[in-house]
Amino acid sequence: MSSLAHLTLTALPQIPLIQPGDDLVAITLAGLKGAGLRLQNGDVLVYASKILSKAEGRQVALSQVQITPEARALAQRTGKDPRLVTLILEESAQVLRARPGLIIVEHRLGFVCANAGIDASNLGEEDGVLLLPRDPDASARRLRAGLQQATHADVAVIINDSHGRAWRLGTVGVAIGLAGLHPLTDRRGDRDLFGREMRVTVLGTADEIAAAASLLQGGTDEARPIIHMRGVPYRAGPGRLQDLLRPRELDLFRK
Amino acid sequence: MSSLAHLTLTALPQIPLIQPGDDLVAITLAGLKGAGLRLQNGDVLVYASKILSKAEGRQVALSQVQITPEARALAQRTGKDPRLVTLILEESAQVLRARPGLIIVEHRLGFVCANAGIDASNLGEEDGVLLLPRDPDASARRLRAGLQQATHADVAVIINDSHGRAWRLGTVGVAIGLAGLHPLTDRRGDRDLFGREMRVTVLGTADEIAAAASLLQGGTDEARPIIHMRGVPYRAGPGRLQDLLRPRELDLFRK
Repeated sequence: MSSLAHLTLTALPQIPLIQPGDDLVAITLAGLKGAGLRLQNGDVLVYASKILSKAEGRQVALSQVQITPEARALAQRTGKDPRLVTLILEESAQVLRARPGLIIVEHRLGFVCANAGIDASNLGEEDGVLLLPRDPDASARRLRAGLQQATHADVAVIINDSHGRAWRLGTVGVAIGLAGLHPLTDRRGDRDLFGREMRVTVLGTADEIAAAASLLQGGTDEARPIIHMRGVPYRAGPGRLQDLLRPRELDLFRK
Repeated sequence: MSSLAHLTLTALPQIPLIQPGDDLVAITLAGLKGAGLRLQNGDVLVYASKILSKAEGRQVALSQVQITPEARALAQRTGKDPRLVTLILEESAQVLRARPGLIIVEHRLGFVCANAGIDASNLGEEDGVLLLPRDPDASARRLRAGLQQATHADVAVIINDSHGRAWRLGTVGVAIGLAGLHPLTDRRGDRDLFGREMRVTVLGTADEIAAAASLLQGGTDEARPIIHMRGVPYRAGPGRLQDLLRPRELDLFRK
């Protein structure tokens, strides 16, 4: 562990504005070429969830939303658009907290986030909003398979999004979908020299990768949505988002 | 924002086991030399808090701890060593949650973490534990000033630690002290093209840097405690840990 270790991140250049139906594998391959990169085993590609949402046609026009009574009540309580709140509730398993301007939910995908991860900015049409990908693990698996078929390289793929935190300010990139890696790195036993309680035992590797990529993306914005990483210490294998989520029964802060 | 962007991280090689009183500036300069790196303006150095704690003599022998009645009660409830619990309470402003094996506190430095960040592993003597640095912002400022004096480069310094999260498994690196940068990057107004609610507005840059470095450190372990980063988009200036912490009155999850 004490030898020289390098990690490099490259934002793929000249990624076009993504449209529904776009082929993100082809776009990635063109971006890698533009950056002078050839995929190698062990590389990681991180995609801002927003471009998956766009490619997969997850735009919804607010004018088409049928407001529910539950959404109308919550919209009143939070001062948010009742059509947006209807979508937030549709995308959520449970509302954890609500206050003016903010609704914290357990998303249907299992993670806790604000406003069900719905992006109401920058869509280019007056009333359009963008939902998260329907199944980000499946999106990651498709990207990984496409890249592997084209390059024969065994890589990991992470879909990231920007989440707030309960006790800290500012958003950080987190993984909301993944393929080709175990998202946690279990260090238990590695350095238990004195048979005592270990402070750090399991590392949230996929989330640290997502955060590192987000630094270059500028907050999972669109300008630099695809990040290539080389030198990441991760364990290849069949991982999924669920592995990263704390089971409800171990949650000390839901109630 | 769409040009080629690179970020490189290097774990400085051959960092010795740190002892109380060690000169971390001299050790950093030797590590940079070993890595063939010459500091430049805008570089970032990330230090695992553990080596700051060691250099600053924050080891405490459990056999010297006078157990308090409050600690004895909490130790019984959590099944933890009452001497360790005494130190946890001394290092904390408030206990937020406790269950067998785990005490979540607001640390006296203001952040929320498990067991007050006290490291009870790997100290090399039977009953020794390691407290976090007394004032990590001050530690970061000293390192930054020392590096600047030696190299004339204007760099940012972050002290990182590994924290668990309320709803996700695995630890991630976070900043617990910093110097030379604004830890948050405010994007409000940057892309508000349609005059609508922005989803991502303020980025937790210092925490994303801390997480990226932690990938190479292997969980703020000791083997690779000092990470050099080049190409990080950050705003230089006088930042401090406090800027990263959500004020209590905006905390929806404390109670």
